[in-house]
Amino acid sequence: MSYNIVPLNELINQFSRLPGIGKKTAQRLAYNIIEQPPERAKQFAEALVNAREKIHLCKCCQSLTDKDICEFCSDEKRDKTTVCVVEDPRDVMAFERTREYRGVYHVLHGVISPLDGVGPEQLKIKELMARLSSGEITELIMATNPTVEGEATASYISRLVKPMGIKVTRLAYGIPVGGDLEYADEYTLARALEGRNEI
Amino acid sequence: MSYNIVPLNELINQFSRLPGIGKKTAQRLAYNIIEQPPERAKQFAEALVNAREKIHLCKCCQSLTDKDICEFCSDEKRDKTTVCVVEDPRDVMAFERTREYRGVYHVLHGVISPLDGVGPEQLKIKELMARLSSGEITELIMATNPTVEGEATASYISRLVKPMGIKVTRLAYGIPVGGDLEYADEYTLARALEGRNEI
Repeated sequence: MSYNIVPLNELINQFSRLPGIGKKTAQRLAYNIIEQPPERAKQFAEALVNAREKIHLCKCCQSLTDKDICEFCSDEKRDKTTVCVVEDPRDVMAFERTREYRGVYHVLHGVISPLDGVGPEQLKIKELMARLSSGEITELIMATNPTVEGEATASYISRLVKPMGIKVTRLAYGIPVGGDLEYADEYTLARALEGRNEI
Repeated sequence: MSYNIVPLNELINQFSRLPGIGKKTAQRLAYNIIEQPPERAKQFAEALVNAREKIHLCKCCQSLTDKDICEFCSDEKRDKTTVCVVEDPRDVMAFERTREYRGVYHVLHGVISPLDGVGPEQLKIKELMARLSSGEITELIMATNPTVEGEATASYISRLVKPMGIKVTRLAYGIPVGGDLEYADEYTLARALEGRNEI
């Protein structure tokens, strides 16, 4: 870039380090900040620092929270005997949007993936085992993603946990609601057939 | 959202106020910030505030700069007799990328658009007239966008300037380099035909 405005280039750099934001988009966003009133940039800057400083992992379920214990773990109306095990804090939000699930969560922060150098010890599995040792939990719902790594992680944890007499379940496979059979892939369709229910 | 982490929601809100960033993308970006080391958030915050505070309009050509007079206006090697009139500071960067243009610029910061309530007085036209009154400038290249508003703005300024004896030119219309004639629209093709050159 022959346009040598150092503070502008720095802001563009910062934006382009975000995932999915290319050079062009980063430029557009940086120009937008410069066009807005100065308070906007200040509020944005505060929100960035605030979020990074105040948000950490829940001591119990490892999801994100700005308190010691997250809102789900500290909610007395929640069923503490059922734990939904997910890969990522965002998956917690996905389950919350269903408004169906009343149990609690456990966030692994990844999946076992030897190719990426991620083994069980890098995940929050020992924290899960510690929670299970209290004896309160009766069911573990494995809700890792339906990928090879997600499956492997689910079966790894399931093998660890089953000897403790805890029920381990996996999310159902099948055709997505509102989907079109014509566009369903053969694996999904085969699983939907296999898991068919009487009506 | 039933996920009540105030600092997280605030950061998501800030991201989603950026142009072209929807709710989902804003969430992804906010989670990315939380996953990165705290220094990253601090650097980003500083870049935001810095850029907004230090960057302002060049006193001469109204493009963005962190100095009093921008690098183009203060560059002695530049041809000060030719001024390229553009809509937006980003257009300056586009011309600089050509590495062909050696004149200076004038940024209008918009185009005349009565429907949006933008008249000539909202644009940096009086600043342009002030520059022209020095008598140094001999050519004005109208490089507003090839839209209805861009055209109208170009001809408005041209009418103002011509009586002063200054040459006013407009960018050439034609088929884009590397383009495919099959996909060129009829207006562009007609203009390309009209402006044909002998080879």
